[in-house]
Amino acid sequence: MTDTRQPATDLSLDEVAELSAQLRVDSIRSSTSAGSGHPTSSMSAADLLAVLVGRHLRYDWDRPEADTNDHLIFSKGHASPLLYSVYKAVGAIADDELMTGYRRFGSRLQGHPTPILPWVDVATGSLGQGLPDAVGVALAGKYLDKLPYRVWVLCGDSEMAEGSIWEALDKASHYRLGNLVALVDVNRLGQRGPTELGWNLDAYARRAESFGAKVISVDGHDLPAIDLALHAAGAGGDRPTVILAKTVKGKGFSEVEDHEGWHGKALPAEMAERALVELGGERNLLVRGPVPAFDRRPELRPASAAAPRPAYALGEKVATRKAYGDALKWLGGIHPRVVAMDCEVSNSTHTDEFAHAYPERYFEMYIAEQQLIAAAVGLSVRHYVPFASTFAAFFTRAYDFIRMAAISAASIRLVGSHAGVEIGADGPSQMGLEDLAMMRAVQGSTVLYPSDGPSTVALTKEMADRPGVSYLRTTRGGYPTLYSEDDEFPIGGAKVLRSTDDDVVTLIGAGVTLHECLAAADELARENIAARVIDLYSVKPVDTETLIAAADATGGRIVVSEDHHPEGGLGSAVADALLASGLTPLRMKHLAVRELPGSGAAHELLEAVGISASHIARAVRALLA
Amino acid sequence: MTDTRQPATDLSLDEVAELSAQLRVDSIRSSTSAGSGHPTSSMSAADLLAVLVGRHLRYDWDRPEADTNDHLIFSKGHASPLLYSVYKAVGAIADDELMTGYRRFGSRLQGHPTPILPWVDVATGSLGQGLPDAVGVALAGKYLDKLPYRVWVLCGDSEMAEGSIWEALDKASHYRLGNLVALVDVNRLGQRGPTELGWNLDAYARRAESFGAKVISVDGHDLPAIDLALHAAGAGGDRPTVILAKTVKGKGFSEVEDHEGWHGKALPAEMAERALVELGGERNLLVRGPVPAFDRRPELRPASAAAPRPAYALGEKVATRKAYGDALKWLGGIHPRVVAMDCEVSNSTHTDEFAHAYPERYFEMYIAEQQLIAAAVGLSVRHYVPFASTFAAFFTRAYDFIRMAAISAASIRLVGSHAGVEIGADGPSQMGLEDLAMMRAVQGSTVLYPSDGPSTVALTKEMADRPGVSYLRTTRGGYPTLYSEDDEFPIGGAKVLRSTDDDVVTLIGAGVTLHECLAAADELARENIAARVIDLYSVKPVDTETLIAAADATGGRIVVSEDHHPEGGLGSAVADALLASGLTPLRMKHLAVRELPGSGAAHELLEAVGISASHIARAVRALLA
Repeated sequence: MTDTRQPATDLSLDEVAELSAQLRVDSIRSSTSAGSGHPTSSMSAADLLAVLVGRHLRYDWDRPEADTNDHLIFSKGHASPLLYSVYKAVGAIADDELMTGYRRFGSRLQGHPTPILPWVDVATGSLGQGLPDAVGVALAGKYLDKLPYRVWVLCGDSEMAEGSIWEALDKASHYRLGNLVALVDVNRLGQRGPTELGWNLDAYARRAESFGAKVISVDGHDLPAIDLALHAAGAGGDRPTVILAKTVKGKGFSEVEDHEGWHGKALPAEMAERALVELGGERNLLVRGPVPAFDRRPELRPASAAAPRPAYALGEKVATRKAYGDALKWLGGIHPRVVAMDCEVSNSTHTDEFAHAYPERYFEMYIAEQQLIAAAVGLSVRHYVPFASTFAAFFTRAYDFIRMAAISAASIRLVGSHAGVEIGADGPSQMGLEDLAMMRAVQGSTVLYPSDGPSTVALTKEMADRPGVSYLRTTRGGYPTLYSEDDEFPIGGAKVLRSTDDDVVTLIGAGVTLHECLAAADELARENIAARVIDLYSVKPVDTETLIAAADATGGRIVVSEDHHPEGGLGSAVADALLASGLTPLRMKHLAVRELPGSGAAHELLEAVGISASHIARAVRALLA
Repeated sequence: MTDTRQPATDLSLDEVAELSAQLRVDSIRSSTSAGSGHPTSSMSAADLLAVLVGRHLRYDWDRPEADTNDHLIFSKGHASPLLYSVYKAVGAIADDELMTGYRRFGSRLQGHPTPILPWVDVATGSLGQGLPDAVGVALAGKYLDKLPYRVWVLCGDSEMAEGSIWEALDKASHYRLGNLVALVDVNRLGQRGPTELGWNLDAYARRAESFGAKVISVDGHDLPAIDLALHAAGAGGDRPTVILAKTVKGKGFSEVEDHEGWHGKALPAEMAERALVELGGERNLLVRGPVPAFDRRPELRPASAAAPRPAYALGEKVATRKAYGDALKWLGGIHPRVVAMDCEVSNSTHTDEFAHAYPERYFEMYIAEQQLIAAAVGLSVRHYVPFASTFAAFFTRAYDFIRMAAISAASIRLVGSHAGVEIGADGPSQMGLEDLAMMRAVQGSTVLYPSDGPSTVALTKEMADRPGVSYLRTTRGGYPTLYSEDDEFPIGGAKVLRSTDDDVVTLIGAGVTLHECLAAADELARENIAARVIDLYSVKPVDTETLIAAADATGGRIVVSEDHHPEGGLGSAVADALLASGLTPLRMKHLAVRELPGSGAAHELLEAVGISASHIARAVRALLA
């Protein structure tokens, strides 16, 4: 904020018209200067944004962190020239940054907005995500913050074809989110031609109404009509509002208005000049809209009767999914910002323990995994500590949302139960066999895979404080407790469970295969083969030091067994770490689920796919032969 | 078909009633015998299935491969006891198999249906996928096979919360799929309690109608009403039909009817006995419904004027996405079953070349990636050769569908453009940086990553004949042509582009990083460091032999550079292969995208994230130091 001019406030609609001309001009100037970008998709929505920012959005641009600010999310993230032009208009960024930074290397004004900018809540650019994320913010506002802020979302019409939009409207109406407003910029042209529904606003209206929204259709270039619509939408109530705005792509420059072939293209310099003439030339308005009344979110206190930390006796058989449920309930008592969500399987993931203890902090997402992740992202925007659970396999449904959560720098905690063939009779559709690969490949992620109750409890607690995307993999069946409550499980560590000076091989497992490794070590001991056993509970980051020390001590012989496909899981984590070390010699046998499994009992399947104790022992013998 | 009895055909509704009692009884018997399963979710839909199978489904149970058969897809795959009980009733399987096989190890009667059974088109069990898959089958029926078969889908009510259901209905109405009928079993109870909309059939009806479906609401236990509904639905027309059936979970056994707590639970033996008494005991009906009239799909002929095989001059700069577009158009001319789809970005992926040449074999999926994959799966059911393209990043949206495609043993070809930071200014939301990890972890998948025009053409052709899920990763920018039209690129191979007897290090890349490896080799050559360069165009399966030979010849020194996150991509493929070999010594430097990238020019980003030629050369010097 270096601009010392006094901003215009309480804008008249005439002033708003000037503002929208400036937004169009700056959308063109910035994208032409960058040589790429989406000016025409910005120009269609400029009037919507001018009215919103000038007269409705309650936002203290000097305090983007204020709890009471409204939220503005560009679900159509490619309209970043418009968003950044708004930031210039309110004096948040300078014209110089807009003109020299947009889409350039090292600049915060990226091609699509990310929260590297303090006014951006979530990264967008993968369509159909901004509205679902906004549902999470609105849930926080209505049920947790209990503050009167509104969440305004600019959607494109093309993205209405994404199922996630309908998951979002479904949940928004289910949770009566009157604080949520979607502005749909119906400019009828997608990237490669007309959209599916064109300017059929009635078709959109029927859909949005049937999903429980209040719908207002307007001419998206009629400022008084937009103003009325935003006024009605911002008044709240018990239903989300969808404003359907019929707009013209490229509006304001006749050479491109409603023309195909101008999606995602900066205007060449000479066209940009003509456009500026048509739009009345450059402007340098400084404007401010309404500011929220001072308010603060309620102080949260720990529940009065916190549950005790879960404890399990050594050898007691406990499913790690159950231990997770116990741990989350315990955390709920000591950590007032912990919030949980699940997709209709909380009695399987054991998140229901938390839901019963803290119903006001539990949100049922029904079977809508994309919205599950998006809600977690939105809650993290408001500094809650969301845990989202479903079967490990079903997180694959939301991988794009998980990937984008990392770009949003959101801190979300995902817990996937029913990992691997160990689940047994339900068969392959329910077996998480790609989840470790998927989660490891997420930027900055943490991937955890405990094998017993105490380690699950400890790691669940670690996750609560962990920034970024973290993932905990749990197992369906019960296995013996290996550790005590006092054992520590730092993220990035590993536990050496068996170790002697005579070890000739290192066995590495996690989850159910750790128990198989222990059984194999017992079997091998009877043959006087001493095996070191490592519990690789932290799959990412991995404990390279412990792995190298063990490999070095055991002649470089390693057997990894994992209940996961061979690519990208435990074995890859070990191989990546060891190959970078340069340790010599090295020889790894990698047992994993290589064929398509069917139904069966857990022990039958572990044996059949080749990851059981007997296979581990056989691999050791082959390494030693 | 060992049953020699004469089946009842042209069932009266009284006979249908007997059949539905048998389906309920067998659903209970089979799940109780297995000790797990979903009898109550089967019982709610038993009347729907009895009427459908007895009087409407045109299916030759002796010829499941017949082109003219209707299709029956259980989107609610957990109702497998009902499906398998139908198979028994028509004599396709014996009662003994049902009672001793269901959910058992080694049996084809798995917990959720898979195409290991000849009457099953697609694997289900991850909810919200059967209906989208069915859209693909119906597209084939209406537009390609041009046969009058219908596609009947049994949906659960809980899965209506999945956005993918709405993507499916949207596309079904857009493509006027009057040959598609969804039967929604609205039993109001999900796994852990009531569904979101309960028995509010009107709410479902408004939604389905707004998405373009013809809706018929019925009492799902009123056989004449069901019969009328199926008759109306099966008559076709220009709109898909959604039959909303109000049903009672556990219908037929009063102790569990409409009771919570009975989802996914087999009845204990003594309860099952009481249920059988209430249902009138065991039956052993053998029934057959209508059989389709003989017909066959039209013979397809290659287009008369096939485009020539694309060719590029050595050194000519060509983007691999463009070469893919050229190749697909060429293939379209010589391979009449090749079909293409894209999600609104065909002018970026270059699939538009095929779309313009063969519009009758191109389906625009708009921005709905889940439906994109599902349509490909459905088309593969009908033996077409689908190629589905979008940005590499956006396949993450459909990972659950890709995973399930593998379980369906579907042969689908996915092509992801705009891989990695190389895309430049658009920023991280558009950068495919997890796609190799994701695709490698799919069971039985093939992952290809060409670096120039001729290799892209050759690999696109290889994909057409490849079973299973195959993935081709393409690059945005143009890079020099390295190969000639005569070079061969077998899947599972690799190309050694530089090789001398004095090589001291192996450089491995693919796509843009292969060109960086070549530049690094040039730079190193000026320092008299000889580097072998490998084009790892086949990431899975990987050419272990070539990798081992190169590592062995270059003192075990390997540098891998990839435009992908460090987990699960090229580096992991190399590490997995080499560590299993036992080769000594081995030392790998792995250059990958480790931090969150921003916008910028391609060369700036390659340099900034550390995967450019200069970084590769530096890594070599460090290995040699």
